[in-house]
Amino acid sequence: MPDRIDFQTDPSRYRHWQVAYDGPVATLTMDVDEDGGLFDGYQLKLNSYDLGVDIELSDIVQRMRFEHPEVSVVVMRSGKDRVFCAGANIRMLAGATHSHKVNFCKFTNETRNTYEAAKADSGQTYVAAIQGSCAGGGYELALACNHIMLTDDSTSSVALPEVPLLAVLPGTGGLTRVTDKRRVRRDLADVFCSTEEGVKGKRAVEWGLVDEAVPNARFDEIVAERAAALVAARPKPDIGKGITLGPINRRFGDDGSVTYSLIDVAVDRAGRRADITIKGPDTPAPIRVEDIEALGDQLYLLRLARELDDVILHLRLNETELGLWVFRTQGDPDAVFAHEAAILTHETHWLCREIRHLWKRVLKRVDVTSRSLTALVEHGSCFAGVLAELLWAVDRTYMMEDAFEGDNRPLATITLSDGNFGSYPMGNGLTRLETRFYGTEGATDNLRTQIVQPLDAEAADGLGLVTMILDDIDWDDELRIFFEERASFSPDAMTGMEANLRFAGPETMETRIFGRLTAWQNWIFNRPNAVGEDGALQRYGTGMRGNYDMERV
Amino acid sequence: MPDRIDFQTDPSRYRHWQVAYDGPVATLTMDVDEDGGLFDGYQLKLNSYDLGVDIELSDIVQRMRFEHPEVSVVVMRSGKDRVFCAGANIRMLAGATHSHKVNFCKFTNETRNTYEAAKADSGQTYVAAIQGSCAGGGYELALACNHIMLTDDSTSSVALPEVPLLAVLPGTGGLTRVTDKRRVRRDLADVFCSTEEGVKGKRAVEWGLVDEAVPNARFDEIVAERAAALVAARPKPDIGKGITLGPINRRFGDDGSVTYSLIDVAVDRAGRRADITIKGPDTPAPIRVEDIEALGDQLYLLRLARELDDVILHLRLNETELGLWVFRTQGDPDAVFAHEAAILTHETHWLCREIRHLWKRVLKRVDVTSRSLTALVEHGSCFAGVLAELLWAVDRTYMMEDAFEGDNRPLATITLSDGNFGSYPMGNGLTRLETRFYGTEGATDNLRTQIVQPLDAEAADGLGLVTMILDDIDWDDELRIFFEERASFSPDAMTGMEANLRFAGPETMETRIFGRLTAWQNWIFNRPNAVGEDGALQRYGTGMRGNYDMERV
Repeated sequence: MPDRIDFQTDPSRYRHWQVAYDGPVATLTMDVDEDGGLFDGYQLKLNSYDLGVDIELSDIVQRMRFEHPEVSVVVMRSGKDRVFCAGANIRMLAGATHSHKVNFCKFTNETRNTYEAAKADSGQTYVAAIQGSCAGGGYELALACNHIMLTDDSTSSVALPEVPLLAVLPGTGGLTRVTDKRRVRRDLADVFCSTEEGVKGKRAVEWGLVDEAVPNARFDEIVAERAAALVAARPKPDIGKGITLGPINRRFGDDGSVTYSLIDVAVDRAGRRADITIKGPDTPAPIRVEDIEALGDQLYLLRLARELDDVILHLRLNETELGLWVFRTQGDPDAVFAHEAAILTHETHWLCREIRHLWKRVLKRVDVTSRSLTALVEHGSCFAGVLAELLWAVDRTYMMEDAFEGDNRPLATITLSDGNFGSYPMGNGLTRLETRFYGTEGATDNLRTQIVQPLDAEAADGLGLVTMILDDIDWDDELRIFFEERASFSPDAMTGMEANLRFAGPETMETRIFGRLTAWQNWIFNRPNAVGEDGALQRYGTGMRGNYDMERV
Repeated sequence: MPDRIDFQTDPSRYRHWQVAYDGPVATLTMDVDEDGGLFDGYQLKLNSYDLGVDIELSDIVQRMRFEHPEVSVVVMRSGKDRVFCAGANIRMLAGATHSHKVNFCKFTNETRNTYEAAKADSGQTYVAAIQGSCAGGGYELALACNHIMLTDDSTSSVALPEVPLLAVLPGTGGLTRVTDKRRVRRDLADVFCSTEEGVKGKRAVEWGLVDEAVPNARFDEIVAERAAALVAARPKPDIGKGITLGPINRRFGDDGSVTYSLIDVAVDRAGRRADITIKGPDTPAPIRVEDIEALGDQLYLLRLARELDDVILHLRLNETELGLWVFRTQGDPDAVFAHEAAILTHETHWLCREIRHLWKRVLKRVDVTSRSLTALVEHGSCFAGVLAELLWAVDRTYMMEDAFEGDNRPLATITLSDGNFGSYPMGNGLTRLETRFYGTEGATDNLRTQIVQPLDAEAADGLGLVTMILDDIDWDDELRIFFEERASFSPDAMTGMEANLRFAGPETMETRIFGRLTAWQNWIFNRPNAVGEDGALQRYGTGMRGNYDMERV
């Protein structure tokens, strides 16, 4: 078992996936190394997966967009005979802590959402080419693809056997995608989800579970045809070359601190708090597309997004007792504004577009992070444009008002940009400002008139952009009280409260997966019928079914 | 502790509420009898409530609509000094089983939804007139009102202290109504929901938590003014007299069976199944409004709705191990159609409107019932119009195809009516047919052309109205296998699966309360931080805080 789960990898280190590039078509082959599990105690048989397998997939999907923008179609296949993927590894789940199970599902959900959105965001269509059995999390891998092909033979099927077999739910969006995306009729979905052996061939097409059933003898040929047709239907502009995503610059301290090129993470264990300080730009903003291309992964906003993503994942999985995250920035707000403007100005350029989408995804990770989140707008800070999004992703924002004794930094301001009005939508499809002022007529129109103006504490408070403004006299005390209070509450109650308060307004498939499906799954992950000594997860593989308390709740 | 929780009551038996009628204004005074708890082991101090208190409220709200249609405004007040309502009783919650807690919250949610909707459905506006502290479930009582008045003094406040005080969530829609209905900004909602002492007076108005803060000295006067203004703003048509809701006709058998005038409930304990058989009309359909008024509570559809409501609540709370409910009907489908047509024809008449809304509510109870639900369309059945809604409220529907040997009943049919196209919307705002065919262009338009035609098994199957049609050869075996299979699954997994599959399409405040908020609350109700020996619920009142595992999940 690793001391620390590392979310950084690169193709030279993959153990479970192979990627072959052929012009506009990439083929992604899942061929899980049985002995390559992240923890001890289980073997990853039958292309079953654990978090380590998904970290590689996430890396592939990310590199596909930055390193291989020429790719239009990604075909996902299995490298094993007679099995596409058996889903999440059961012994891993049975042995994992509740928090690991929950965080594992959250990360896999985020990865599914990322490649599902690649078609709309980046013109990369994912195709699941299924031969053999495709069950549980395996079918959920396929459900997040844009097109599902199933070979029509006696052994190939799609299935969500979690309920009958394991007494848990398909945990990676399966139930929601079956009804909301695939539009499977709810009673047929009920039959499907309670049928261990799954559904094959034509029936799977009729019910809407897959898009086509393909004769096995011609499978490869038809997959290739389909890929070619998808490429032809969606010609890509002439994109020269992708950029290389090099390793991120990161150093772990003994005390839990982490130092990145642009982020410092400090840890207060007694206070159960992580202090995350983001630095403003250390380079001038590029102007022309050529400058942006030349900078590649060293571009301030790209480097920062990748580092912030790593911070979030590291703290979520490796520091579960740090219940409060405090975001700060220090730097020149005008420089942040200029860097973002460069990206937004060249929005039609593939790399600028990918950087914006990456920020969208990183900010969404913040939205669904199960920690109490706070931002402090201190003097000298640079909450402008994309960084200002953090102010409305968090649960509360405190801002310094007026001069503080002995503090010579520029007075705290917030700067809105065009980016705050549509570039980084939340999972509910709204901007964070729209969500914040949901139901208040004209609120965001009014805010638009403030773009570029540095807003001081009084102005920001008047516009409702911060929770509270505090002067030199109150700042330290108020924050101390808040930190102590928050650290004293039940983490579970915080999680439930935050999951409900953060998403006002409309729901989407994405919010339903994180809000409804996940909540029910977490509940079940706590029930003896699933995880108890005689529960289905523990008994899996023993030949005995779970011994259930039959009371309905 | 009662052997059986009884959901039937009447004003002569109320212990916790008084209702005073004064023409168009009714005053509802909460004055909970401390010693009137439904179970032993707790006292209902400070107007705290348990299920028994809510059963009375539910009865009042129902009678308000049927017995007092002349009422336009209902003012909800407290009969205690210095406290409006302290919310759900903590000792009751601490001592209750998980299933009781969950079912208690579900029922109170349904009651809140019922009076919240009374304004739009029946022109009855509920006003919360708060003096004293109004906390937790107490504030949730007020949140479901259409207008909230708070006296502006030093002791009166509204609060949701569940998270800091008890490590659970406000369980009756509080978090969702704060953001979705009251439009409280999410960061202010975060502050509010983590502040034990709540928010008072003007700040409560500014944040949107209440509609007005009223000087204490003039409180009664201003409440009366407001009620009079609401009455004047919404004049009611001249409604003569309500009808009386007499006791329902019900007999419990020793074996768990229950016999109503129109419903038989049989119990198969070994099979964990309840068989619910609804009889068709035993009286001719009325034609004129005068006939409907004269029949009053003996009208077939009203009698049936009240009996079905009682069946649902009885089985939910008192028979938690019966995991599968099977709905059948027997009778003349044309007669059901005619009875419904009478109600829908006279839709503008207050009583017909109330009967339709009652059916809407009863069917919604079915939608959110945490049991596997099935309907069998057998020969001799009468699934027409409103009763056909049951076919799409349940998880699966089986229908008899062709003649069965030795069965002389009329062949099974399904009959659609106008009612199936908008009279009984689900919580998501769609009809059950719209939900069933969500995303399929033109599906319900096509069904509309089938109104009144008896649809045999083949036709119903072709239209997608049933899950499966079975002939004489397969019927018994297929059902036996299904019943056995369903009874063998983990009840928890069933609950989670059904909660996700039943509500395709859009979400509303109501579906978010039942689907998102409830799921997180149920999870928390299972966590040691809340319900463990050292959890906050158990320690409440001891002066000690909960001893929490600080791991974030």
